[in-house]
Amino acid sequence: MKLIYQGKTKDIYQVDDLLCLKFKDDVTGTDGKFDPGANSVGLSIEGIGALNLIMSSYFFEKLNDLNLHTHFVSANLDEHTMTVKPMKVFGKGLEVITRYKATGSFMRRYGAYATEGQDLNGYVEVTLKDDERQDPLITSAGLATLNIMSLEQYQTLEQLNLKIAELIRQDLLTKGLTLYDVKLEFGYHPDEPSQIVLIDEISGGNMRVYKENQLLSPTELAAFYH
Amino acid sequence: MKLIYQGKTKDIYQVDDLLCLKFKDDVTGTDGKFDPGANSVGLSIEGIGALNLIMSSYFFEKLNDLNLHTHFVSANLDEHTMTVKPMKVFGKGLEVITRYKATGSFMRRYGAYATEGQDLNGYVEVTLKDDERQDPLITSAGLATLNIMSLEQYQTLEQLNLKIAELIRQDLLTKGLTLYDVKLEFGYHPDEPSQIVLIDEISGGNMRVYKENQLLSPTELAAFYH
Repeated sequence: MKLIYQGKTKDIYQVDDLLCLKFKDDVTGTDGKFDPGANSVGLSIEGIGALNLIMSSYFFEKLNDLNLHTHFVSANLDEHTMTVKPMKVFGKGLEVITRYKATGSFMRRYGAYATEGQDLNGYVEVTLKDDERQDPLITSAGLATLNIMSLEQYQTLEQLNLKIAELIRQDLLTKGLTLYDVKLEFGYHPDEPSQIVLIDEISGGNMRVYKENQLLSPTELAAFYH
Repeated sequence: MKLIYQGKTKDIYQVDDLLCLKFKDDVTGTDGKFDPGANSVGLSIEGIGALNLIMSSYFFEKLNDLNLHTHFVSANLDEHTMTVKPMKVFGKGLEVITRYKATGSFMRRYGAYATEGQDLNGYVEVTLKDDERQDPLITSAGLATLNIMSLEQYQTLEQLNLKIAELIRQDLLTKGLTLYDVKLEFGYHPDEPSQIVLIDEISGGNMRVYKENQLLSPTELAAFYH
């Protein structure tokens, strides 16, 4: 196993033709407080890596069963690792945020027109992964102009993303939980750029989930999937 | 004449059923330096109000002749005033930026993917007029979600905007000048929301124009239209 990348919440190893993601106990946040929209590691939570892996595996298996494209191959819960197929990322990586309720950076940008918690009905936006420039919002036209993603790829991504976000929202709903927003990452097949594929993870680390008007911590959310 | 609004570069008066825009000698900028993307009055330039009015009238008359919808009725160069038909603005107002070359806020956002001055082929983006939140970028989906503009209105606006921006670019080209970007404002007819109309002004105050790799000041640009 050869370490090829150290991320904020995961390290990535090469294993033959596949990649192995090692889930760490770090989560993004600001001033020691969890924030899925933050750009830096805010705190460590003991055991959260394993819990996020369990939750991710649950959702990836569901998606694979539905023939929705993901990079997921298998998980090893003892080792805290997930084996995935290597995919190409768009540019230097981007995040696709699906918003059901207004909060976080949406309110910071559009607070003149929105109220905290208002319905956004699955509004989708894309941000570039760029810590230095605070993950700027970019339009589909901007992605095409900068040769990061073609308009055709964007349309495919948008459709796949909405199916996945909606599946997550519905699953949470059966547990009495409300999804405010979820941040997913997508790549594309190295030999087939039109094939858009969900990458990264699906866990409490990249979504805001409420139970009866109370934001759940990643640990509290993971307990629903343990 | 009843003063109804004091803007950064223009005051607005009500005259019967029409509005009268009084062009001032203030331009937007930062630290005493002209910047069409800035949110505050940066400096005063003696006579620039009259010059901007001349340039605006030139373009508005051209557009009206082509039956492209504008709010322009007439100009009074002695009084530094422009008479216009009152239009509704989208939300609290927005700006439509057409970019032919990468510079300014585009580089601040997308500098990881772009080089200063690279071709952008008329890429269009919309920002909300919101000084407090630094005029945030918003997508057509965001505008629709927040009930600022319907997707149908956005499509009409985008088509009209590109025709106007292209006309401005071509006109400058005949004078040996290169348009980097232009920021236009649109509203809609109070009785006919599907009718999108160009409002505000078209002058050196809302575009970046280069002559042989040198950015022209608003006064230098206006001299080409005097």
